[in-house]
Amino acid sequence: MAPAAPKSGDVLFASVDRVNAELFTLTYGAIVRQLITDLEDVEEVNKQLDQMGYNIGVRLVDEFLAKSSVSRCVDFRETADVIAKVGFKMFLGVTASVTNWDAEGTTCSLILEDNPLVDFVELPDTCQGLHYCNILSGVVRGALEMVSMKTEVTWLRDMLRGDDVFELQVKLLKQVPEEYPYKDDE
Amino acid sequence: MAPAAPKSGDVLFASVDRVNAELFTLTYGAIVRQLITDLEDVEEVNKQLDQMGYNIGVRLVDEFLAKSSVSRCVDFRETADVIAKVGFKMFLGVTASVTNWDAEGTTCSLILEDNPLVDFVELPDTCQGLHYCNILSGVVRGALEMVSMKTEVTWLRDMLRGDDVFELQVKLLKQVPEEYPYKDDE
Repeated sequence: MAPAAPKSGDVLFASVDRVNAELFTLTYGAIVRQLITDLEDVEEVNKQLDQMGYNIGVRLVDEFLAKSSVSRCVDFRETADVIAKVGFKMFLGVTASVTNWDAEGTTCSLILEDNPLVDFVELPDTCQGLHYCNILSGVVRGALEMVSMKTEVTWLRDMLRGDDVFELQVKLLKQVPEEYPYKDDE
Repeated sequence: MAPAAPKSGDVLFASVDRVNAELFTLTYGAIVRQLITDLEDVEEVNKQLDQMGYNIGVRLVDEFLAKSSVSRCVDFRETADVIAKVGFKMFLGVTASVTNWDAEGTTCSLILEDNPLVDFVELPDTCQGLHYCNILSGVVRGALEMVSMKTEVTWLRDMLRGDDVFELQVKLLKQVPEEYPYKDDE
């Protein structure tokens, strides 16, 4: 059977089951608050959020590949574009832009101007080291690892810290094409 | 100005910002897993989820009243209907049915046949006492308290425990109409 044409993020987002963004935002806020209370150390909270995101990314990639009809990306550059335009749209309802490529094409930044995770959020002074959205960097890292791209994902700019946008740097460390877990004809 | 007509749950759900339900489900699962690891006691996890839900419900009621154009409900019976048909639909994308009223009209059950929180969830044997969806009972309790209805909310049936539906019993303990925090003409 010929593969279906890849779907746009808008079409995908309209086709999947959804819940109210405010409920999601408040639920996520409740997690972060809980972790801060339990762990009492923002660095530990950052780590935990990243790990939770990683576990989620590993799972989400299944739904993404199944529903998006995206086939294997040619390279990291194409992969970054798909994450920004299709992945973010499909799951969060917003798109990111991709910029700041290095010469080798192995490091880029995803820029988010709109981020449903942080609606109504203000960080108290006691949480200055917190990467509130660290679950997102974990999701990106986990999802990419499932398509055999080992990455390092780092927040360079953060609107909760006074920056004008969210900038998530994604650096490709290692790519193992043979471990790609999905066959095209499945 | 004449008050706007109340909107249906479907119309409201279509009009609010949303995120992918699977992302929400997995994020919620990550919270529960985290709490089980940190608290090591399912009863404590139940309490914590309920408290998180309560805090969310207290906040969500604002969006609900602002967007739904629902005005003050005549009685608890009408309130239960609005939660089931409009509230659940607006936030989770599913509706509940209302049954099992007692003679006094102060206790009823909300029945959920479909619940996005539990997609792909199976409880291990070690978590048999867990009320996985306890955040929902907390949300209902918190939201009702903001409209001056003090309630007790209890799970009577739970699909994760082998029941055919989710049944959430809502019992009105006390109603203080004068504390209603919103004026009709605001």
